[in-house]
Amino acid sequence: MSTYTITSVPGFRAAGVAAGLKGGSELDFALVVSDVPAVAAATFTKNLVQAAPVQYDRALLARHRTHIRALVVNSKNANAVTGPQGLRDAERMAAHTAEALALPEESGVFVMSTGVIGVPLPMEKIERGIRLAAGRLAATPEAGIDAARAIMTTDTRHKVAGTHRALNDVQSAIAGMAKGAGMIHPNMATMLAVIATDAAVAPDALDAALTYAVERSFNCISVDGDTSTNDTCLVLANGTAGNAPITIDDPRFAAFQGALLDVCQDLARQIAFDGEGATKHVTIEVQNAGSFEAARQIGRTIATSPLTKTALYGRDANWGRVLAAAGRAGVDFDPDATSLWFGDLQLLAAGSPVGVDEARALEILSEVEVTITLDVGGDAGSATVWTCDFSHEYVTINAEYRT
Amino acid sequence: MSTYTITSVPGFRAAGVAAGLKGGSELDFALVVSDVPAVAAATFTKNLVQAAPVQYDRALLARHRTHIRALVVNSKNANAVTGPQGLRDAERMAAHTAEALALPEESGVFVMSTGVIGVPLPMEKIERGIRLAAGRLAATPEAGIDAARAIMTTDTRHKVAGTHRALNDVQSAIAGMAKGAGMIHPNMATMLAVIATDAAVAPDALDAALTYAVERSFNCISVDGDTSTNDTCLVLANGTAGNAPITIDDPRFAAFQGALLDVCQDLARQIAFDGEGATKHVTIEVQNAGSFEAARQIGRTIATSPLTKTALYGRDANWGRVLAAAGRAGVDFDPDATSLWFGDLQLLAAGSPVGVDEARALEILSEVEVTITLDVGGDAGSATVWTCDFSHEYVTINAEYRT
Repeated sequence: MSTYTITSVPGFRAAGVAAGLKGGSELDFALVVSDVPAVAAATFTKNLVQAAPVQYDRALLARHRTHIRALVVNSKNANAVTGPQGLRDAERMAAHTAEALALPEESGVFVMSTGVIGVPLPMEKIERGIRLAAGRLAATPEAGIDAARAIMTTDTRHKVAGTHRALNDVQSAIAGMAKGAGMIHPNMATMLAVIATDAAVAPDALDAALTYAVERSFNCISVDGDTSTNDTCLVLANGTAGNAPITIDDPRFAAFQGALLDVCQDLARQIAFDGEGATKHVTIEVQNAGSFEAARQIGRTIATSPLTKTALYGRDANWGRVLAAAGRAGVDFDPDATSLWFGDLQLLAAGSPVGVDEARALEILSEVEVTITLDVGGDAGSATVWTCDFSHEYVTINAEYRT
Repeated sequence: MSTYTITSVPGFRAAGVAAGLKGGSELDFALVVSDVPAVAAATFTKNLVQAAPVQYDRALLARHRTHIRALVVNSKNANAVTGPQGLRDAERMAAHTAEALALPEESGVFVMSTGVIGVPLPMEKIERGIRLAAGRLAATPEAGIDAARAIMTTDTRHKVAGTHRALNDVQSAIAGMAKGAGMIHPNMATMLAVIATDAAVAPDALDAALTYAVERSFNCISVDGDTSTNDTCLVLANGTAGNAPITIDDPRFAAFQGALLDVCQDLARQIAFDGEGATKHVTIEVQNAGSFEAARQIGRTIATSPLTKTALYGRDANWGRVLAAAGRAGVDFDPDATSLWFGDLQLLAAGSPVGVDEARALEILSEVEVTITLDVGGDAGSATVWTCDFSHEYVTINAEYRT
């Protein structure tokens, strides 16, 4: 587990409190505040059904990408498919937060919700959460971890990541948190992720760096093929590092983008490997598919194949299922030029099966970390996709989640 | 269960025998023979990875669509991803069958295989199966049921269907059998299905009728979203009813096509409802999506949503998951004009949740037959998709299938 939390970034404070949404003393409400106005970029779910907070955040970001001061998040209720009342509730959630923090008029507050779909937000508890969290904001590691814990739903572990990067003479921090364990098959963004940096970054550059990083991180994981209505990935850059703002043409842009990618991939892997009921951490490397996009498409199809995922759960070297999934990915490749490995054990060589050493295969599949490598023998173009296996526990969790 | 079997059709005989592929006395090898040359049409998997028997059958059909005399099927081994040896084995399987039946030179024999991927066919057992089956061909209902039982893999029930239809003064029979319980997400064809009719039908008309019927039957079911490498749907018309051949412009074409659709839908429903580990028979009606194709796309996305399917297993009226799945189907619709029902219980009215009567919802979801109706409020265009739930048993079956 990373020693970074969102409060590792200078100028950011956080809190995670129990607002009573989950019941009892469980943390269920998070607040992240930048002490000075921050630049924001975000990616959102491409699901046609978009939760009220996603609609609210999109509109906020369309109005301005600067002067962002806070992010408020509740768990247990997604505020999705809640009709016009849902959007009013998201607006009130932002307004109450601005009021509780006594923010200047022009300040922007982002809102995120995660949990059950189709139930109105319990606004009394939301308001209690805002009051409690505003009173408990701190820049300590504990506060950062509390915030990361408060946004969990079926997650078994809180998810944080971070790094430092030199931007010429300035040392800049970048750190974030995420949640997500089910309904994970992000399309342009994942469940919920928020990343903070003290670097000063121009809005367009922040946007470009986030899009690049999300394509290669959150958009490369899948738990169950279901894309959420609430997926949001938000990055806030508050400039307290004191560097001159980074622009796209800037030589420092690559370093910043690389740091953001590292943090996003770290968080994305944590989500994939904490998939509901997961017993395996599965890394799928697809090679020579002609392009990153084609390779990722094949990798995602394998990562969403229930037959592949149940075989992994059963530690069964049933590699034919991997190949069958690849074949329905909608990407053109030559099966007779395709080779496949589980770990370092080759199972298929240029379209012909290699006699399987079953004992060795069982050994490889008994590890928690499993790597599947598929070389489809075409032009250059590779991608890595992270997922988990499909267990009895996934069914138990999701047959009983709402109750 | 239908009282029809493939031997209900005049001029067809069948056999199902134990060739030792499954071990012991379990039926695992089927033979269907037309006493006179038949016209054939078939649809095959669109998976890029195509099993050897699919490659063989495609080539046969490209050569001629008449003079078809037999179909030979083994279970337990898919003869898929078996390299050049696999295609040679499929050819030998057809040649041995023609020899055992002493068929004239120009006769065509179709080959189907289903089971594990990536293991060479045990040709000694295949040859034993051909000899045994050729010696036991009969036109009795028992022989038809034996053939249907012999093609089963993880199926819990054999699948047969049939009907009679008047084609002017001639009464024609149409009946078939199918298998499939996992790796079911057909794209242009399903796992294995064979349908026989004694009607005389011109090759082009048979092809057109089959394509129409498959689009509205096997291509409207899903068990797990995994498209098989072996999907094949074959129809044989041997003309023993004595009618003048039906052409596409013929007024009798609609009646024939309707009969074929009835049989295909009956078989397709049996496959969906016998999905691996299924406890529910789920019918998804999507309405007002602008076209049949758009409606089916939405329906198929719901039918492959693990979260929807596990909720159905848990008898949880978690309708938000249905809507979230619809929203990622890639079809444009207005969530605010969308309504949703489980059985006759409305849960969403024009985008706003209707207070759920949980007791009534539990009652509806406790039935084996569950119908989900989603009206997306656009232009006319509807489709019905059949699927099953996702249970612990599915995971158990597929974590242990190969062993």
